[in-house]
Amino acid sequence: MLKSLNVCDLTPKAEIESRIEKLKQRMAENNIDFAVILQNVDMFYFTGTLQKGVLIVPVEGEPLLFIEKTMERAVYETPLGIIPIRRDKDVKSILADKSVLKGRGAMEFDVLPVSVFERWKGLLGFENFVDLSLMIRDVRLIKSPFEIEQIRKSGGIVSHVFEKAKDVVKEGMSEVEIAALLEAHGRIFGHQGFLRMRGLNQEMMNMYITHGYSGTIQSHADVPISGAGVTHAVAQGPSINRVERGVPVLIDYGGGYNGYITDETRPYVAGTMKDVFRKSYDTAREIIEDTGVFAREGVNGTEIFNRAMEKAKKAQLEDYFMGYGAGKVGFIGHGLGLEINELPVITPRHDTILKEGMVFAFEPKFIIPGEGAIGIEVDFIVRKDGLERVTDFPIDVVYV
Amino acid sequence: MLKSLNVCDLTPKAEIESRIEKLKQRMAENNIDFAVILQNVDMFYFTGTLQKGVLIVPVEGEPLLFIEKTMERAVYETPLGIIPIRRDKDVKSILADKSVLKGRGAMEFDVLPVSVFERWKGLLGFENFVDLSLMIRDVRLIKSPFEIEQIRKSGGIVSHVFEKAKDVVKEGMSEVEIAALLEAHGRIFGHQGFLRMRGLNQEMMNMYITHGYSGTIQSHADVPISGAGVTHAVAQGPSINRVERGVPVLIDYGGGYNGYITDETRPYVAGTMKDVFRKSYDTAREIIEDTGVFAREGVNGTEIFNRAMEKAKKAQLEDYFMGYGAGKVGFIGHGLGLEINELPVITPRHDTILKEGMVFAFEPKFIIPGEGAIGIEVDFIVRKDGLERVTDFPIDVVYV
Repeated sequence: MLKSLNVCDLTPKAEIESRIEKLKQRMAENNIDFAVILQNVDMFYFTGTLQKGVLIVPVEGEPLLFIEKTMERAVYETPLGIIPIRRDKDVKSILADKSVLKGRGAMEFDVLPVSVFERWKGLLGFENFVDLSLMIRDVRLIKSPFEIEQIRKSGGIVSHVFEKAKDVVKEGMSEVEIAALLEAHGRIFGHQGFLRMRGLNQEMMNMYITHGYSGTIQSHADVPISGAGVTHAVAQGPSINRVERGVPVLIDYGGGYNGYITDETRPYVAGTMKDVFRKSYDTAREIIEDTGVFAREGVNGTEIFNRAMEKAKKAQLEDYFMGYGAGKVGFIGHGLGLEINELPVITPRHDTILKEGMVFAFEPKFIIPGEGAIGIEVDFIVRKDGLERVTDFPIDVVYV
Repeated sequence: MLKSLNVCDLTPKAEIESRIEKLKQRMAENNIDFAVILQNVDMFYFTGTLQKGVLIVPVEGEPLLFIEKTMERAVYETPLGIIPIRRDKDVKSILADKSVLKGRGAMEFDVLPVSVFERWKGLLGFENFVDLSLMIRDVRLIKSPFEIEQIRKSGGIVSHVFEKAKDVVKEGMSEVEIAALLEAHGRIFGHQGFLRMRGLNQEMMNMYITHGYSGTIQSHADVPISGAGVTHAVAQGPSINRVERGVPVLIDYGGGYNGYITDETRPYVAGTMKDVFRKSYDTAREIIEDTGVFAREGVNGTEIFNRAMEKAKKAQLEDYFMGYGAGKVGFIGHGLGLEINELPVITPRHDTILKEGMVFAFEPKFIIPGEGAIGIEVDFIVRKDGLERVTDFPIDVVYV
């Protein structure tokens, strides 16, 4: 029965085995004897299911997947063997029998709340844990062909919605109205419903619509543009601000398919775009086209950022590039996968050598105080000989 | 400018002061000298803003609100004085000057990731912290008149969407189609965009639509019904399952207004409801009506659950009550506020004496394997002399 409702591919067995193998290699390099994985996204990545339970990966030997509920879904979803448990306390004696609890353990310190960590230390009667999160993020950094297939389908939702936006965006509509209608189109086309961002206080909308003033509001989050929202309790997203002629409506939308996130932005304009935005748009476009030709496996992310910054400077737009004043952010690209803040980060702050299979959103944007924001965001897959676009939706300004 | 886009009330100064006072009382009772608050929802509750920063509450003296970004929004949103900082490291010397870092500190162990906790201990040069989360949850348990006003507006979104559903739900539509269209109606009517659930792996949709088989799928989450979703990567929410005549479509929708969440469920039926659901629906209705008359300040949540269970038993429906088999959950109600899993929990597992100002969702539901799910969920405000409904949308089956 569950099968009849499953529209997405299950994660293949070879895929799961390869992921766990890569994690074990990193664990061995870091002298970790066993890993305890509790976060649902990491569970899904390494098992194919996010049903309630825990995955224990000994550096040698088989992974142990304990499931509390529900067995029905877990059995259908994961290619791994399952050890059913009634409660999390049941795990300890089984691990003790298998002599797993020894040496140095590792857990996901970047997402695991202190009280959950303390509970699991007590429950396992084991204290010696170090942080597993960098190893997990490193394994997840390179996307497999299976993952790229999911990412392309996720991008397909974005293209579909950008196409629909041509008919939806109109002078006089509010940002919220546009977002509501477009998100509905995305959902019906297969969007999974929500997107994930890793870490404390990391929240996001599926869609940001900004226009004029709302695009220039600085964000509490580490993003160049996030809008006003409809309440200070959320403080991001589309607002009641209405579309005026000539001012770009930025549509920044996150596709979500089978867990995988894409994230692109296009400017829509009712009528003719005001001159003040023209040079910024042209520069953003030039940056994307230049990066698409220049970047490939082996190129450093710092070079990509710096070339973009050079173009912004040459156009005398560096004050607006990736925000202005205190709202400026220090990156132009971020990794995509099951979470929207994966590696790599394309920033001048640290080296990142691109490698085949990395996937990132690339978003040259300009925020012009008193006027509005403009920019483009596309998703790139890194290949040996260049970058490949995830969607084929054009990067032109869309006039409506 | 920000003001022109603000459609929700800012949190009044007296409200913020009273909340902080209550927290200080609980800190004093627990011998806490200062609290460090980092989670965005708690920040919003105690300051009126969730801009990036940290709130330090000494048990004696004024709260210290440090804001990193953005000052523009924070200044507009909070009635508290603000200490601007460039980075979180700047906090220590100011706290040292004010002799705050002494005795016993407390932090939000239920949501604070281990690495953030370790970072803050290092950054403050202070190690002696205990868990603050129960004290915060206890302060947030009783809703003020201002909060209840926000909750009523949140409930207004739910009523609006339930009304729209009469025109939307039709034989042959998929659950996802119904959810997409109804969520768009809610968003345009003022829904804040997403809802919050506290803790690791606590994720939720704004709307669950289940029908027949999908309503009977057991959930990994601690909820009786969560649907199939469209991918195992999310594993909850509406699916591609299509509406058939006679089988209830359960619409379980969370309103979100100015941060405040409501959560109600109604059954919609195309044509005439199949007999197999009738007794369950009648019993759910009877439980709600009985609770509405019986419960008030001073009543124990265990009594409410047990009376409901008695009615389920009398109708010989106890096997289906709040789930079946391993999918059964041990509660019939949960607290509402800025997060959907607030206190109180209405459960037989522990005593909870109702008090004026508590707000909870009450959801007698029956899951009939092989057939589907049916039930009703309404939100109640506890008053001295009874319960008050948050919305006035009828609890009848809606025939479409």
